[in-house]
Parts: sequence; C-alpha cells; structure tokens
Amino acid sequence: MVLLGSTGSIGVNTLEICRRFHLPVEALVAGNNLELLQEQIDEFQPELVAIADPARIEEVRHPRVYGGQEGILRLLEESASPKVVNALVGTAGLRPTLKAQELGRELALANKESLVIAGAFLDRSRIFPIDSEHFGLWYLQNSRSVRRLLLTASGGAFRDWEPEAIRRAAFADALKHPNWSMGDKITIDSASMANKLFELLEARWLFDNSAVDALIERRSIVHALVEFADGSTTAHLAGVDMKLPIAYALECPMKEPILEPVDLLGIGPIAFEAIDTERYPLWQLKEPLLAQPKLGVVLNAANEAAMEGFRRGDYPFGVMVDRIVDTFHCFEEEEPKTLEEVFALDRKVREYCYGL
Amino acid sequence: MVLLGSTGSIGVNTLEICRRFHLPVEALVAGNNLELLQEQIDEFQPELVAIADPARIEEVRHPRVYGGQEGILRLLEESASPKVVNALVGTAGLRPTLKAQELGRELALANKESLVIAGAFLDRSRIFPIDSEHFGLWYLQNSRSVRRLLLTASGGAFRDWEPEAIRRAAFADALKHPNWSMGDKITIDSASMANKLFELLEARWLFDNSAVDALIERRSIVHALVEFADGSTTAHLAGVDMKLPIAYALECPMKEPILEPVDLLGIGPIAFEAIDTERYPLWQLKEPLLAQPKLGVVLNAANEAAMEGFRRGDYPFGVMVDRIVDTFHCFEEEEPKTLEEVFALDRKVREYCYGL
Repeated sequence: MVLLGSTGSIGVNTLEICRRFHLPVEALVAGNNLELLQEQIDEFQPELVAIADPARIEEVRHPRVYGGQEGILRLLEESASPKVVNALVGTAGLRPTLKAQELGRELALANKESLVIAGAFLDRSRIFPIDSEHFGLWYLQNSRSVRRLLLTASGGAFRDWEPEAIRRAAFADALKHPNWSMGDKITIDSASMANKLFELLEARWLFDNSAVDALIERRSIVHALVEFADGSTTAHLAGVDMKLPIAYALECPMKEPILEPVDLLGIGPIAFEAIDTERYPLWQLKEPLLAQPKLGVVLNAANEAAMEGFRRGDYPFGVMVDRIVDTFHCFEEEEPKTLEEVFALDRKVREYCYGL
Repeated sequence: MVLLGSTGSIGVNTLEICRRFHLPVEALVAGNNLELLQEQIDEFQPELVAIADPARIEEVRHPRVYGGQEGILRLLEESASPKVVNALVGTAGLRPTLKAQELGRELALANKESLVIAGAFLDRSRIFPIDSEHFGLWYLQNSRSVRRLLLTASGGAFRDWEPEAIRRAAFADALKHPNWSMGDKITIDSASMANKLFELLEARWLFDNSAVDALIERRSIVHALVEFADGSTTAHLAGVDMKLPIAYALECPMKEPILEPVDLLGIGPIAFEAIDTERYPLWQLKEPLLAQPKLGVVLNAANEAAMEGFRRGDYPFGVMVDRIVDTFHCFEEEEPKTLEEVFALDRKVREYCYGL
C-alpha cells in the first residue's frame, strides 16, 4: 500500500488498520509533521518516503526520501503497490490521484478535492470512498455479513400507562393502538408484546438467525435495523402503511412510488427505548423462546386461550398476561419433533390454560 | 392470486394493490364480514370463495362458495394461482399455510402464527414476509432501485451561533468542531458547509447520481441515507470513527468488528434538520453545483483562496464566505472541457479571489 498523507487523522487511522491486519506499507508521504513521520518510518519500514518540503529532506532518516509535488509523483511511479490511499488535504491531492489512475492503481480516496475539481475526468469505477458519508452510501447499496436483526415495537396501547393500571385494564383499553389501525387480535398482542415475541420467532425462521431482538420506536417509522459484524447498523424507514410489503410480496413493478418517502425533516426526533419486563411481563419469555423456538406453539396457544376470557371480560389484562406466562413455564421443557406433535401440544396447552 | 383473509386490514390493502397493478384475484377467503366480502366479489370477480362459517354460505352471492376450515383447504386445492396471500388471523392460518406449501405455492405470509407455531416445519425459502418489520429486515439485506442519496452534516462549529456572530467569527472559533477531530482545513469547511458541498459533488461522481442532498444530524451517528423509488428510506449508522471506511477500502477481513456497534438505547433521539442558507450562505451554491458539477473546481479554488486570508486573520468568517460566493458567481458560466482547462480555470479563479 502507498499512503499519501500519513500524519493526518485519516493517515493515522489507516496505519492503525495496517497494524491490526498486518498490511505491508510500501510508501509513506507526509506534510510537515516530520517527527510523527519518523516514528511511522521506524515502525512500518516503508521502501519509499516523500515529504511536502524538498528543503527538509535531510531531516528524515531514510535512504529514499523525495520532496515536493514532483517527489510525490516520482514516488508513485517507483512504487509497485496496487492500492494507493490518498489522504492528502486540498488541491495538492489531485495530481497524485491523476498519476495513480494513469498507473492503473486502485484508489482509496479521502482527498475530496480530486472528485470536486476533476470528478468528470476520473475513472470512478476504480475509486473507493474513504469518507463516512460516502462509505455510508456505498454500504447501503451493498450487502455485508449480518450480526444481529432488530425489530421495532410501537409499545402498544399501554406504553405510557402505570404498570398497576395496565394490570387492571379491560379489553376496550387494550384496543387503542397509538400508530396502526389493525384487527382486535393483533392490537391486543401489541399491548402485551406477544406480537413482538411472535415477530422475533418469525424473524428467527425467515432469516435463519437467532440473534434477533426488538426495541421500542414510538413512531413506527423505523421498522427494522440490521447490525453487521463490522460495527455498522442499517435501518429501514417507511410510512405506517402495509402496502409496501404487500406490493413486494406480489412482485409489483417498483418504478413508481408505493408510498410517499418519509419526510425526514418533518418527523421530529427518532428514539429507541428498551422493552422492560415490568411494563411488558411477557418479554421475560424472549430468551427461552429464542433458545427453543419450537416453543412458539406453546406461546401462541396460551396467548389465544388466555385472550378468550379477557375478551369476554372474565378477567383484566394482568390476569391474561399471568396466565400466558404460567402456561408457558408449565410447558417449556417440551420439544415437538413432528407437526403432529405440534398440534397435540397445541391442544394440551389450551386445555391447561382454560383450566387455570 | 389466492387471498386468505380478504376483509381484514392486510386483505383490504392487498386488494388495493391488486386494483392499482391490475393483478387478477382467483379466490377470496373471508371471516364474518360478508357485506365487505360481497363488494369484493362484485369488484374482483374471483372464481372461488370461502367463508369461515359453513352455515352462512347461502348469504353469499357467488356460484362456488365453500365454508369452514375444510372449505379453505378445498379452495386451495381447486385454485391454480402460484401465489397465496395468507392474511388469516391466529392459529386458523396454519393449516392453509401447510396446504399451500404442500401444493407448491409461493406464500406471501401475513399470518404470524404459521411461523410461530410451526416455523421449523415450513419451507422458509418459499415464504415472503408481509409484516412491516420483517419486510424491513428483508429490505435491508437486498438491493433495490435508488431514488435519492442523502448525506448528513454535523452542522460544524457554528451550528448554534447567531448568524451575525458567525459573520464576525475568527479562525480559532471555526476550529471547534462538535463531533469530529480533524485537520484545520476540513474543520473550517465544516463550519462553512463547503465540506458538505464537496461531499455532494463527490457523491455525484462516485455514484453517478445527481439526486443528492444533505441534512443536519447533530450527533454524526447517521452518516447517510438512501431513498428508494418505492418510498422506503434506509440509513447507515456507525460510530464517529474513520477506521470503518478505511478497513473496507483496504479490503480487510470483516469477521471481527472494526467498531463497536452503535448503542441504540444509549444514543438518545436522532433528529434531522434542514441546512438553512442564512446560517450557511454557501448552501445557496448547491443547486448550481449539482446542475453543473464541473464547477467543483471553481468552488474549491475560491474556497482555498478565501481561506488563506481568513487563516491569517485578514478578515472574519463572514467575509471569507462572501468572497467564495462572489467568486463562484463570477465563474458559474464556465464549463471546462479538458483537464487542462480545469487547471487553467483553477488559476484564474484564485487570482480573481485574491484580488477581491
């Protein structure tokens, strides 16, 4: 690798990466911080060095030091590395960019001015951006290795209620979903977080990944996030409208918008909150469910059975939730091996729950 | 298409998509809202219909109506559509899912319980999720057609200063960047938004897309967003650290994290703000620059030339900005056709700017 601009902040970070991944450094180019350059020379042992000021060449302890703009171009010509990191500041970075392209090198480009001044005249297919924003744009258009999948939850009807009041709440209270207009069943499931447990299991099966979790985003604008192995996180934002996934599911042409884009300037702040088990006691079932996702049948049967009495007004929300938790724990050692065993377990769970 | 659960909110949205894209509907299955079902039958003319309650078949005006769970399975067997949308609620959705898979159909699955109960026993490769969160996860892992690229800006040193005070600010004031520790040049460029104009031009050239814009995100956690033609927006989040793009540029192995993932629960709210031209007068150059991105050489030369006097203390920040704007407007009709013309224009612009 040839590193132009080794003593600036990009240069120093580049050498940190070289140190970590044991990447060889063929050439270093620096400006006026000769003290730091000397340390870098001593550590990375480059074959070629160049500095901005030809008059100071004698101050650098290295057998091959060139000086000035011409010195940088000569260093590029004499180097052999296929990759050139250009982290020079200002217009001074342009001629080295042009030379590197002329020599057929791959450019890792942190020098903004190269593209600003002469973008039209560069081979952009051989440039990788070192700039957090452009890297972000590249990242969002390319796939990488996933570490964790994150769903968001609105928090449901009781997200701002006191836990004690939630326990006493009736069916009609739980139907008041803050963001989405949906059927009764899923609206109750949103208030209890049963819905989000379902969705973790769905994600587990759909994407074959047990590293799934959820957090609250009150506006339901961010629907999902993906954490990548490298430390990046990406987020999907869209309006509160199911037509988008439906149109994809039906393979509709996507030339025209299905939804209006999110008005990023109009939506106000986006914040993420943890799902706490005091407000949402069902959330304590997350770990056992992800450890044994075949227990989804138990959660679902207990949830449907317990909801029947809640819907009829036999007991309040808190009792429904307790029944789901108690029933789940009663069956959490089960492991159905066939679909027939799944259906048999479903019946057993419902019977147990009705009998509570 | 076969639509199971046509009168619920997913079903109604599905039929809206069918109406818009003229997709044929072979079969409709509904619960107890027979009035809405009849309207759907009259509009979409399905060949097959089924309802939950066999006793009410006579209430539906259609020659082929089946009833109950068995009726739904029979309808699936007699249908021929390759795609089944399962938007049934609760456990009742599972057997139709199993039947659709047995028949080799593609499933567009909104019925959560199918995966929750029996995910281990389904062919997940033939299931597309209709759920905003899982769709989001799918979306973040697949590429689509881009509409607009968005960069974020921190707002720089003066983002909370009064515009009049900004005009009088000195070099040392402009060096106080709120988020990033960088060299002098780019820190001044951040305060003036010249840096973000540079980055729009870079994005224009790197991604061959003139639909680029920027907005302020004060924490520099969201670095970039992409708007897609369908109305989705994706965002890239990462720590304030350049090692991530550098590691990618150097093609390092990405098995281990380069950065710690963003602590979504710890970062607090994320908000986007417009870049206003009163605080950032250079932002008025955005439109002419994107209309004629070859003028990047003019912006850069004016910016470097005007910054020299500001750095020396000859004039305050506001005068530097005025000189950049005035110089740009003086040369905005230019259109360099070769690299030589670019370099000649660069010299002319600097001379003009020094003479102001």
